[in-house]
Amino acid sequence: MRLVAPALGVYAPWVSDPGTIVSRVLRTRRATLRLVESLDAEDLVVQSMPDASPAKWHLAHCTWFFERFVLRPLGIPPLRDEYDYLFNSYYEAVGARHPRHARGLLTRPTAFEVFEYRRAIDARLGDLEGTPDLVTAEVATALELGLHHEEQHQELLLTDIKHLFGQNPLKPAYRISPQTRVRNSTPPPLESAASLQALRWLGFDGGVAEIGHAGPGFSYDNESPRHKVYLAPFTIASRLVTCGEYLAFVLDGGYLQNDLWLSEGWSWVNAHKKRAPLYWLDGGADEVDPSAPRIFTLDGVRAFDPNEPVCHVSYYEADAYARWARARLPTEAEWEVAAERGRNAGLAGGINDAMSGHLHPVAVARDAASETSRSGVPAQMLGDVWEWTQSAYSPYPGFRPLDGAFGEYNGKFMVSQMVLRGGSCATPRDHARTTYRNFFPPGAEWQFSGIRLARDA
Amino acid sequence: MRLVAPALGVYAPWVSDPGTIVSRVLRTRRATLRLVESLDAEDLVVQSMPDASPAKWHLAHCTWFFERFVLRPLGIPPLRDEYDYLFNSYYEAVGARHPRHARGLLTRPTAFEVFEYRRAIDARLGDLEGTPDLVTAEVATALELGLHHEEQHQELLLTDIKHLFGQNPLKPAYRISPQTRVRNSTPPPLESAASLQALRWLGFDGGVAEIGHAGPGFSYDNESPRHKVYLAPFTIASRLVTCGEYLAFVLDGGYLQNDLWLSEGWSWVNAHKKRAPLYWLDGGADEVDPSAPRIFTLDGVRAFDPNEPVCHVSYYEADAYARWARARLPTEAEWEVAAERGRNAGLAGGINDAMSGHLHPVAVARDAASETSRSGVPAQMLGDVWEWTQSAYSPYPGFRPLDGAFGEYNGKFMVSQMVLRGGSCATPRDHARTTYRNFFPPGAEWQFSGIRLARDA
Amino acid sequence: MRLVAPALGVYAPWVSDPGTIVSRVLRTRRATLRLVESLDAEDLVVQSMPDASPAKWHLAHCTWFFERFVLRPLGIPPLRDEYDYLFNSYYEAVGARHPRHARGLLTRPTAFEVFEYRRAIDARLGDLEGTPDLVTAEVATALELGLHHEEQHQELLLTDIKHLFGQNPLKPAYRISPQTRVRNSTPPPLESAASLQALRWLGFDGGVAEIGHAGPGFSYDNESPRHKVYLAPFTIASRLVTCGEYLAFVLDGGYLQNDLWLSEGWSWVNAHKKRAPLYWLDGGADEVDPSAPRIFTLDGVRAFDPNEPVCHVSYYEADAYARWARARLPTEAEWEVAAERGRNAGLAGGINDAMSGHLHPVAVARDAASETSRSGVPAQMLGDVWEWTQSAYSPYPGFRPLDGAFGEYNGKFMVSQMVLRGGSCATPRDHARTTYRNFFPPGAEWQFSGIRLARDA
Amino acid sequence: MRLVAPALGVYAPWVSDPGTIVSRVLRTRRATLRLVESLDAEDLVVQSMPDASPAKWHLAHCTWFFERFVLRPLGIPPLRDEYDYLFNSYYEAVGARHPRHARGLLTRPTAFEVFEYRRAIDARLGDLEGTPDLVTAEVATALELGLHHEEQHQELLLTDIKHLFGQNPLKPAYRISPQTRVRNSTPPPLESAASLQALRWLGFDGGVAEIGHAGPGFSYDNESPRHKVYLAPFTIASRLVTCGEYLAFVLDGGYLQNDLWLSEGWSWVNAHKKRAPLYWLDGGADEVDPSAPRIFTLDGVRAFDPNEPVCHVSYYEADAYARWARARLPTEAEWEVAAERGRNAGLAGGINDAMSGHLHPVAVARDAASETSRSGVPAQMLGDVWEWTQSAYSPYPGFRPLDGAFGEYNGKFMVSQMVLRGGSCATPRDHARTTYRNFFPPGAEWQFSGIRLARDA
Repeated sequence: MRLVAPALGVYAPWVSDPGTIVSRVLRTRRATLRLVESLDAEDLVVQSMPDASPAKWHLAHCTWFFERFVLRPLGIPPLRDEYDYLFNSYYEAVGARHPRHARGLLTRPTAFEVFEYRRAIDARLGDLEGTPDLVTAEVATALELGLHHEEQHQELLLTDIKHLFGQNPLKPAYRISPQTRVRNSTPPPLESAASLQALRWLGFDGGVAEIGHAGPGFSYDNESPRHKVYLAPFTIASRLVTCGEYLAFVLDGGYLQNDLWLSEGWSWVNAHKKRAPLYWLDGGADEVDPSAPRIFTLDGVRAFDPNEPVCHVSYYEADAYARWARARLPTEAEWEVAAERGRNAGLAGGINDAMSGHLHPVAVARDAASETSRSGVPAQMLGDVWEWTQSAYSPYPGFRPLDGAFGEYNGKFMVSQMVLRGGSCATPRDHARTTYRNFFPPGAEWQFSGIRLARDA
Repeated sequence: MRLVAPALGVYAPWVSDPGTIVSRVLRTRRATLRLVESLDAEDLVVQSMPDASPAKWHLAHCTWFFERFVLRPLGIPPLRDEYDYLFNSYYEAVGARHPRHARGLLTRPTAFEVFEYRRAIDARLGDLEGTPDLVTAEVATALELGLHHEEQHQELLLTDIKHLFGQNPLKPAYRISPQTRVRNSTPPPLESAASLQALRWLGFDGGVAEIGHAGPGFSYDNESPRHKVYLAPFTIASRLVTCGEYLAFVLDGGYLQNDLWLSEGWSWVNAHKKRAPLYWLDGGADEVDPSAPRIFTLDGVRAFDPNEPVCHVSYYEADAYARWARARLPTEAEWEVAAERGRNAGLAGGINDAMSGHLHPVAVARDAASETSRSGVPAQMLGDVWEWTQSAYSPYPGFRPLDGAFGEYNGKFMVSQMVLRGGSCATPRDHARTTYRNFFPPGAEWQFSGIRLARDA
Repeated sequence: MRLVAPALGVYAPWVSDPGTIVSRVLRTRRATLRLVESLDAEDLVVQSMPDASPAKWHLAHCTWFFERFVLRPLGIPPLRDEYDYLFNSYYEAVGARHPRHARGLLTRPTAFEVFEYRRAIDARLGDLEGTPDLVTAEVATALELGLHHEEQHQELLLTDIKHLFGQNPLKPAYRISPQTRVRNSTPPPLESAASLQALRWLGFDGGVAEIGHAGPGFSYDNESPRHKVYLAPFTIASRLVTCGEYLAFVLDGGYLQNDLWLSEGWSWVNAHKKRAPLYWLDGGADEVDPSAPRIFTLDGVRAFDPNEPVCHVSYYEADAYARWARARLPTEAEWEVAAERGRNAGLAGGINDAMSGHLHPVAVARDAASETSRSGVPAQMLGDVWEWTQSAYSPYPGFRPLDGAFGEYNGKFMVSQMVLRGGSCATPRDHARTTYRNFFPPGAEWQFSGIRLARDA
Repeated sequence: MRLVAPALGVYAPWVSDPGTIVSRVLRTRRATLRLVESLDAEDLVVQSMPDASPAKWHLAHCTWFFERFVLRPLGIPPLRDEYDYLFNSYYEAVGARHPRHARGLLTRPTAFEVFEYRRAIDARLGDLEGTPDLVTAEVATALELGLHHEEQHQELLLTDIKHLFGQNPLKPAYRISPQTRVRNSTPPPLESAASLQALRWLGFDGGVAEIGHAGPGFSYDNESPRHKVYLAPFTIASRLVTCGEYLAFVLDGGYLQNDLWLSEGWSWVNAHKKRAPLYWLDGGADEVDPSAPRIFTLDGVRAFDPNEPVCHVSYYEADAYARWARARLPTEAEWEVAAERGRNAGLAGGINDAMSGHLHPVAVARDAASETSRSGVPAQMLGDVWEWTQSAYSPYPGFRPLDGAFGEYNGKFMVSQMVLRGGSCATPRDHARTTYRNFFPPGAEWQFSGIRLARDA
């Protein structure tokens, strides 16, 4: 179950094909560049909060990852020595680094220089295609990790730009109509569901189940080993909580009733004067116009579709909403078992893809025909919004971090964070999988995070 | 498995005997007073940090709990209206309250007035003994909760006084020799083990196990319902980590190696310049005199016994120590299964008792004869130090909080906290049990918290 | 003009009579003890904010001052070595000290021990009366400084206790009727003025004037040397601003109009949500009942007399009020020149005396007869409230700090503070003088600080 | 002495020539653009600390000032409504505004749009040249204030860019060799003095003197009215303190001796771990290489000339240095009287000019011939570094702020700030004058601030 690849002489739970990995890496890196096509250099440099990074930093850091962990072991010298200091994120094992909160001060190197950096490293990576002898299993393993690492940063780049623009009183749009390249154009019409799929409770028997990654494809170390868990019988919602449903919670005074909230969540609500999710523009129960609430999106400000999934809620909000709805959040094991059932039924869900179109989660339309066939299978499991679970982020039994600096990738964050599952509309298509464990502190709200309900059976 | 007592018309997982509960309550409350006999009024009023409370506040709050939840429902008016505001801790359901961080500003009511308050409420509780009709099942249920609530505050009172005295450059002793009542007398000689029990790894097979409280005795709601879990095979240490062992970690530069620490723990180490546990007086690797390190205890400053369990470590420290020792912390389920085996073997461990003597954890002496007989049974499980587990504090499957204000007792803290098990030397004797779930944030170090190691089998 | 006494071989601007200084010191110290007669030990230990100190600390620190600067140079060993660390305030020259913000953690030494400390040091000081040879000019100089130092702390003790009690929701009274010694008794009836003295503007010609202390009596180094200043013609108010006048400012929206405030003051108003002075209980313009506003005083809560001087305002408030009243605050030179004229006319003002009665500023009654005779002479200059001036605290031309540790007494605070003049109702009688320069940061409001207006002529 | 121009119907202490003011404004605005020629768009958008502003914001804010206070009263509508909110700095009278600390989040409007904004407003201002009827005295008055306002921001733009680049580990150079336009070129050789002018103490008799602006040229309201002051006899240094002299203070342990510092300064030293001035790169006494200390300048990093004036020191450092040197800082009146003597001797000093060359203060070379002729005249009074005075920033007697929103320009900052005099190498040439009162809080160090000593005669 656990694969030990000889990559860099270290343990890794995946094996990559040396023959194709370089071209896959370069394709992924081209996709990254497309994400910043509509941005100005100024948009790339600013850091909107300590938790976010400038887009330029994402571009440089992913590049540094390949330079540091693929090229340097091959004896290729760094392009500029100081990039080691500037673009290391948190790998203590490879040296000192620029403080995270100060990433936004780096007007130099300029975006132009960072693009040059990318080109230079891509050229060196491209050279590997012509020298297959160099692409050993170890090198392929590191390249594969770098590819997935870059995909993760693609999503972070989008959430961080959204946060930056969301702080701007002008509320600019990130996305521009590709045809016109005119800024602030009208956002694309909402793909609103004619009628919403009714929420059904899908039942699962209790008993011993298995969760975790079972090779041979790529997965992070924190998804292994696949292992048994015991589940009590439970039911899970057939779809995500919608904006309309969440609006009912807001209008019912959800943010004003302490008994709906965890103690820490209630402090958070009061400290931040929260009355509605991040990016809802009308500021809470008293002010929300129930007939036409507005939200800020990557397409700018627009009315919201009551049928689209609610998004950008913190764990505290997800938990409070669930309590209000006389339900709870699923555990990550429950979620994975439910997702597996869908996958086995051949219904992976319509993945939104940051590269190809949607950058907001869309509603599930009622479809009488398919509903029959899919009864018992949950929708919107992958690629809509990250779904908060009630599971704290902990090691799986038998967890073994990658050796060396790669071991810092996941393991050292296993405290004070909650697990989210499923991937979002901003997650690259092949980065979403049923065993993927994302994690954020309970107060994080700038990710595309939403709510699926569960109940004890 | 889940008991539904008619207490106050609400769900509770215990049933109390109305015939004895009042006298048990009053006995517990007398024990509380004995804890403050050696203190001056000044010691009772000061709050040493926001997480701690003044001893006077503990004395008053426990009293208010009985007044508010037992006497008021019986129609007995409050002694002073303003105590509702001053001595409510966190029960949002019963009204506004004095801010936690400002408890130390309350020089009035004076300690004298608080003792009067206790006497008055005790008298009213005592009256219930003469009117058994009033002690319905509901009232008995509330009295029982109040009793255990008071026991919890007995331990907190001790940890908070220890913290207060620990901040004082004079490092005063809390405990006074009962014979002499002379302050700052020589502390009692250490009961040092002639030779330490060697650490053995006790094995447990994997499979489905049951954890959680199984009546009919008292337990908190968070210990229910008893439920199945799946455990992978594991081993657990036969005893706690000692001060001597922890000193080796310190001297090996444990606080200076980032790869031993969780990311959040490493930030904590650097922010607080930690180099040794709280109450170790010689400040870290460079300064600790390995031949005679000193610690601050409730008996004042003394040399430490290398064989006594290490105490007052945070989760971050416990986790880092375990990584250094090529082990890990147990999950709470593993811990409970191991503790149950010991209990079934009739070996509950020698509980230290705050009421009767020890206020520091003591070493486990080697005893060749007993060692044979006890092989396979872990020592020091109950009543030495609280043992950090790697489990975040979450609801058990099927968890149901108590109804009404009592529901705030445990459930609303189920995020951002880690579970500790076993009870400490400061825990009242009948307050320690194998299913008890204590919880604190990972940075908490002023509780009597220590380390037991575990490993994957 | 500048006196150089040989005290301790150092410069000092005063000369003391060795024959009487010891008995004067002991009398002052007895007065200090009378200030805490009505307090409980708990009241003595708590520190209500970092700027305030516990009463016990004041009692010990003043004692330490005599021990350290009078007795130690005479070869008398300290009572307890650790008191040097615990009770040094800010004298860097004599060693490390307990952090100011942590003074409230010192439940030990107990108040009982501190009273013993006072008795022991007083006994040693008393011994000096029998050995006049020891009381050299140097020793007399240090004793004199210690006496005035203790008087300063008498006032601080009162303001700090008032702040502590003001934070308590019970709003306890500090003062007890001397007859009954019954706590929380009715406060003494207000000595309200039947009719208020009308505010008149007293004119002063411009030109060169002299300010600063002119011996031979005691003064602090910061009052010297006496020196010339040039004043433009000005007028100054014949009395202090009253609560009734300030209430008009509040009711006119004074706290809501940014153009009345300094920029830093406007930030202060908004950060603290200020709507009325500290200790006004009804919270601002919307809530103040103009017919019966209430204030917290050392006698507990009472209605305020509209004719009493407004008190406990910050510099920001004083400055904003003056702007609203189309006036300004006086400079310290203007204030001193005006006060000197009154003094020369034999009208030092009715000094309230913390030792003998009033602990709140009282109104100036109209008195037709005296008004004629006093025309041109300002009232309430000494002993009512400290009067904010528009002068920042700076050295006088030719300022020379005392040598040695005494040099830290005043000089090192000469930045970011504003000068207050006149003494308050809590200032000991012989501690108020026209040349005295008190100083506090502009946001300080817990001192007895009020407002006198001035205008360009 | 005080001019009352009819500008905007309000009081102002200057009169402008309507015939030339527009062209002078436009010339000044062109100079602003030259300051950013060498910067990238990314450099323009980032805010390095709350006290600093992005260069783009300076460019837009100065433009808004003309739009809001010149064009709008003439009935010309704003270019974009939202600029009122985004680019108002602190004028409460004209409405709400974007929070100062969040100026760096405004990636939109882009620099391109801001340059367009400047062009549009400049065009509208230029139109006024063709319609002289519109340029009434009121309009000319507002244009004049706008011109000087823009000059102030020219200097702030330089100090803020220097701070931004100083935070960057790459330590980029702002200035580019105009010939080559190659970034990071070698900085221009230092114009080092072959031999330093020896420091002489220039004497001034005491007595009544006059300070303050005496028309008819432009001055800010805070420089009026001209008024009498009384000065005690004093001496003032013939030149500024040099880097070499300050280095001696550093090497003598100046930052380690508490008795040299104001109490608040000592806290500042310890809180910030200061061991040398801002932009000295070798970190304090232990690390400074006395033979070749390095500093960061707008030309990048270079060795320092021991003869150049020390720069970027806080008030605390200036005050501590003076105490170490057995001197003091001058009062602003002393400084002005000394500067006037130089001006009357026709020796205004060689002003460095941000527009034309030097952006660092330069040394005063010994010149035997001129020294004789200049004996008694201080050098480096204007245009080298801002010189901290010991005067807190207060209103002059008779001070009258400009009416309306312009009244917020200076008056509302008159607390908690110290006055600096003389202008710096970054001050536009015609913006430096002997009566100019600059002001910053005592901890400010990112301005070009240095030290001139004084002494009591």
